[in-house]
Amino acid sequence: MNPPRIGTLPTGPRDAISDVGEIRVGHVTLDLGSIQTGVTVVVPHAGDIFADKPPAAAAVINGFGKSVGLIQIGELGTLETPIALTNTFSVGVVMQAQIREAMAAHPKLGREWATVNPLVFECNDGYLNDIRALAVGEEHYRTALASASAAFAQGSVGAGRGMSAFELKGGIGTASRRAGDYTVGALVLANFGRLEALMLAGHPLGRKLTERKKRDDEAEKGSIIIVLATDAPLDARQLRRLALRAGAGLARTGSVFGHGSGDIALAFSTAYTVPHLPTKPMPALAMLHETRLDPLFYAAADATEQAIIHALWHAEPVRGRDGHKRRTFREILRKLRDEDNPCVP
Amino acid sequence: MNPPRIGTLPTGPRDAISDVGEIRVGHVTLDLGSIQTGVTVVVPHAGDIFADKPPAAAAVINGFGKSVGLIQIGELGTLETPIALTNTFSVGVVMQAQIREAMAAHPKLGREWATVNPLVFECNDGYLNDIRALAVGEEHYRTALASASAAFAQGSVGAGRGMSAFELKGGIGTASRRAGDYTVGALVLANFGRLEALMLAGHPLGRKLTERKKRDDEAEKGSIIIVLATDAPLDARQLRRLALRAGAGLARTGSVFGHGSGDIALAFSTAYTVPHLPTKPMPALAMLHETRLDPLFYAAADATEQAIIHALWHAEPVRGRDGHKRRTFREILRKLRDEDNPCVP
Amino acid sequence: MNPPRIGTLPTGPRDAISDVGEIRVGHVTLDLGSIQTGVTVVVPHAGDIFADKPPAAAAVINGFGKSVGLIQIGELGTLETPIALTNTFSVGVVMQAQIREAMAAHPKLGREWATVNPLVFECNDGYLNDIRALAVGEEHYRTALASASAAFAQGSVGAGRGMSAFELKGGIGTASRRAGDYTVGALVLANFGRLEALMLAGHPLGRKLTERKKRDDEAEKGSIIIVLATDAPLDARQLRRLALRAGAGLARTGSVFGHGSGDIALAFSTAYTVPHLPTKPMPALAMLHETRLDPLFYAAADATEQAIIHALWHAEPVRGRDGHKRRTFREILRKLRDEDNPCVP
Amino acid sequence: MNPPRIGTLPTGPRDAISDVGEIRVGHVTLDLGSIQTGVTVVVPHAGDIFADKPPAAAAVINGFGKSVGLIQIGELGTLETPIALTNTFSVGVVMQAQIREAMAAHPKLGREWATVNPLVFECNDGYLNDIRALAVGEEHYRTALASASAAFAQGSVGAGRGMSAFELKGGIGTASRRAGDYTVGALVLANFGRLEALMLAGHPLGRKLTERKKRDDEAEKGSIIIVLATDAPLDARQLRRLALRAGAGLARTGSVFGHGSGDIALAFSTAYTVPHLPTKPMPALAMLHETRLDPLFYAAADATEQAIIHALWHAEPVRGRDGHKRRTFREILRKLRDEDNPCVP
Repeated sequence: MNPPRIGTLPTGPRDAISDVGEIRVGHVTLDLGSIQTGVTVVVPHAGDIFADKPPAAAAVINGFGKSVGLIQIGELGTLETPIALTNTFSVGVVMQAQIREAMAAHPKLGREWATVNPLVFECNDGYLNDIRALAVGEEHYRTALASASAAFAQGSVGAGRGMSAFELKGGIGTASRRAGDYTVGALVLANFGRLEALMLAGHPLGRKLTERKKRDDEAEKGSIIIVLATDAPLDARQLRRLALRAGAGLARTGSVFGHGSGDIALAFSTAYTVPHLPTKPMPALAMLHETRLDPLFYAAADATEQAIIHALWHAEPVRGRDGHKRRTFREILRKLRDEDNPCVP
Repeated sequence: MNPPRIGTLPTGPRDAISDVGEIRVGHVTLDLGSIQTGVTVVVPHAGDIFADKPPAAAAVINGFGKSVGLIQIGELGTLETPIALTNTFSVGVVMQAQIREAMAAHPKLGREWATVNPLVFECNDGYLNDIRALAVGEEHYRTALASASAAFAQGSVGAGRGMSAFELKGGIGTASRRAGDYTVGALVLANFGRLEALMLAGHPLGRKLTERKKRDDEAEKGSIIIVLATDAPLDARQLRRLALRAGAGLARTGSVFGHGSGDIALAFSTAYTVPHLPTKPMPALAMLHETRLDPLFYAAADATEQAIIHALWHAEPVRGRDGHKRRTFREILRKLRDEDNPCVP
Repeated sequence: MNPPRIGTLPTGPRDAISDVGEIRVGHVTLDLGSIQTGVTVVVPHAGDIFADKPPAAAAVINGFGKSVGLIQIGELGTLETPIALTNTFSVGVVMQAQIREAMAAHPKLGREWATVNPLVFECNDGYLNDIRALAVGEEHYRTALASASAAFAQGSVGAGRGMSAFELKGGIGTASRRAGDYTVGALVLANFGRLEALMLAGHPLGRKLTERKKRDDEAEKGSIIIVLATDAPLDARQLRRLALRAGAGLARTGSVFGHGSGDIALAFSTAYTVPHLPTKPMPALAMLHETRLDPLFYAAADATEQAIIHALWHAEPVRGRDGHKRRTFREILRKLRDEDNPCVP
Repeated sequence: MNPPRIGTLPTGPRDAISDVGEIRVGHVTLDLGSIQTGVTVVVPHAGDIFADKPPAAAAVINGFGKSVGLIQIGELGTLETPIALTNTFSVGVVMQAQIREAMAAHPKLGREWATVNPLVFECNDGYLNDIRALAVGEEHYRTALASASAAFAQGSVGAGRGMSAFELKGGIGTASRRAGDYTVGALVLANFGRLEALMLAGHPLGRKLTERKKRDDEAEKGSIIIVLATDAPLDARQLRRLALRAGAGLARTGSVFGHGSGDIALAFSTAYTVPHLPTKPMPALAMLHETRLDPLFYAAADATEQAIIHALWHAEPVRGRDGHKRRTFREILRKLRDEDNPCVP
């Protein structure tokens, strides 16, 4: 049984964000009874991120979230650290870990040099995880970073360990799509959505699953973080445009960017970097002509939708605090396919 | 044969934006050989819009557009005129018509009183319409305004006369959805989308229609304007949140907010107005609690998707400049349903 | 008697926006009894603006304004037409003139090619000008454009004809400042400010002038448009940063960005252009390192403040509708200097 | 000797932000050799901030900063915690302290209830403080909070302990201004500005002080945080407008919102609160008519400028890491006044 495939664009070799440039991803997973959480780190390139800053931009689709670092990215258009993901109450700790890591690498930081801009995204895994235990420590960020690899697990791992999506088990998913000469990769931390609204490759799966149930009036309380990467030469303005297209892929899974869902997309390019030091030469490559963006936009939406499906697909069942657990998507999809549902993808 | 129905929420009595408050809509349609264009006006309430300003906000999903009036709405959070829609090159003319209309109603305008903020949205109907002829005149705005009614036509009428969507005939569509005690209505000017990408109620109709054709590499050049109205008491900040959810409905039809597509949503409330004169009392009603927004968000997305389908569904064939014409959606849908396509909605 | 000089940075040869690249400015002035208005056009380079688009960005400091064209500039980061300035009720007419001009130059517009984005800024000159007469015609835009020159008048000319600032005669002003290897030029349409708040090179001139008068409780109803140009290689994100610094210069003249004042700044670069056609090569020059922006920021603030003083300084007295007239700044400054006011600049 | 007084508006009884509603301010100051830093907390009202959320909005004037909490405030328009200020590298720690504090007060947090939005602002005190020592602990937030009072110190205290402004000693300053029936209070953490640019009540003090010195080409590396409070009934949209006017006051002290300066203003109202629980009634009071905002805008600019002068005025000399120290403003002002400088305020 394979996950449904979104769209018609070709995938990269791994169907993962690591198909773009030298991107690597690392996880630390905490699986300790009621502690079901973790940290995921996306490393944008193999060098020193602070010294050679990747261009980046974010689109805040719904700002009910506590992610940090986006104000400076909006102003300056660059990343200065790896991209960290964790649970909502651990943002401060991971932020401190990033600062400490940058200080260790750069003795001038906090002295002659400007400060570093930590970048930490979050979703609330409080249904499965005892988030009040504040179990994530600074060392978890460092371990996740050290373990980063182009090959990495999806589903109930890293920051995705305790996440729920569509009242099923959610977590980390990734995908990539080719758009002409370029690749767009997506990595999501999926923790959003009501089951009733779930659409699978356009099919209203959630409605089928919930039609005999009384409507659950609980609001959407989750969130989704979407990280997009491309090797196309885009400037920060163009990357903001790209980031927003993650919202189209997200909507196609059934999200209406619910009130309580912090829906944030970040896009960065691996085509060039901006040097920290003004004494180093600035990049002088041509950006992509604006009219060539559409294939990237399609790729961004498809990769996002596919990454969300992968997050659901790869999620293993997790039992967490107070006996809470989530069914898995594969389980319900198998059942639907076994029944006579010819239109289910 | 009926149009596919989106979602499970109940519709208002007309399934139209005029289900909200006293909203009326008027059209002027120009059908003169190569001139295939027009003006549509949405009148937010039955009184004096300048004297009693409806709260409003816009979400610019993709800003490749020439609509006017949004900067002031963003700052002040109110409408001051009816909402006009027309073709791209006629914005200035309709803007002047709105100013003249406001001057006629308010002799103090341009004297003791502040100016009026014209609000004109546009899409480019240049494929079917000889847009270079600049055929729209100020009188067309006035006629459209005078003809406004709660019952109004959809499809190839008014500003929608020359519009194309998904390489089919597009135009004006409307719909409404009930969300608890409140109604959300949508009116769209649909002029966007590539056929290949068209999704109908989740079903990838466009792919089916184009699979035997060579991929058309022409970029998305259209646009969509989405006007949302609600009788829920929302302030401008909340209305901006509502407006953005139109993007979710739009994405579900196959749009990725293409580079060349000016995708703009406006939302306003009919629950109260803000007086022009500071000597009149300000409204003192309670806004909706933020956690009660989700049903409105679902309604906004569903009404938008339904309104787009209605725009396609009601569009009559139009033959315009240089013999250009567009097939209609009904024609191709009938064909697909006649063939053995059990999953087509 | 000379106008006070702001700051310590050197000026360009003309102390005008035309010190930057090939920029030219043209005016049409309507001086016909109660008609006291006009059009001013800033031409960013000597070529075809639509074919070779200058990078640009705007900062909306206070959005109580009716300027058109900013949404697309925000999305795409380029200009497509000369920059037009006029009175509030003439924006639509000038917009149409820009469209007609672009259509004449580009027969493909509205056909194979995308549309053009008109760019018209406005202030309300209704105190001196009979703005309700709608006296500006399309031909005035064309005449202003045709007359554009690197040497141009300031004060009560062009769009500045009927403008008031600090309850004195306002209008068009310009200035330039050198910042290392680069120049920043400013052109303002000054129509803002209460006399009481006027500061001249830091000196609270307005308070001195009004201290024996009863406080006038009339609100600030004007506006200011600030156009900045630089030959530094900046991208659209950096130009938005530059544009915002006009607000610092504006504040130093006594503005608090009053509620009723549409305060909008546009910045563009003459260092490169972006081709309309994707078949032409994209520019591949290095942008300025972010840490080199501060001198440009100081230059932008100083040039803006100086341009406002020039607008006041060069303004000739104007008598307009209903016998309204404005005193000139030079007149009151001469008087203050003649009295014993040693701290007046 | 008294500090120069800005503007003509009356002050509140304390000339402090605590003149508004029940606002209290607390400090913890760390003065331990090379450790010269601290935490300041502004408590918006006397109740439970999470249960009864004050309306709020921020204006990011220059986004080179690491403050946290602004994304959610932008979306939802409310505060959920006291407002914390500290040094750049301690944001994560203080954020954690706010989360822990909220968890202690609300056992449902992270369980049935949504998360809490920490709000921590920062400036970089690395010149005087050994910021790499990460000396701030969670307990310092709690102690500062516990010590909050309507009477509080200014200058080199709390988060202001190690801050520099205009190459002089900076820190915490506050002021208030009356605007008709309402009060606007400001509290600043001043850590910005080059001496050369310093303006005191309009007078170019910095130029006088530096004219015999060689120009220092070091860039502006500081930041300023401005917290505004008012008892006027404003909604979040109006509060964003108010927050931006802090920029006018800031500019009048000589700032051009330098590249490296994170210049962020937050405004909140004490006129009403929004309940966390949807079961509680929403506030139903009339907001201020938009045309009544101008007096508040003047008050916001004046209070900000005055608060910056107070921060400089009250700053005691501090000797910190590596023997770094800063001269005080009072010292240089006394000297200038003693010399024959009749125009110095």
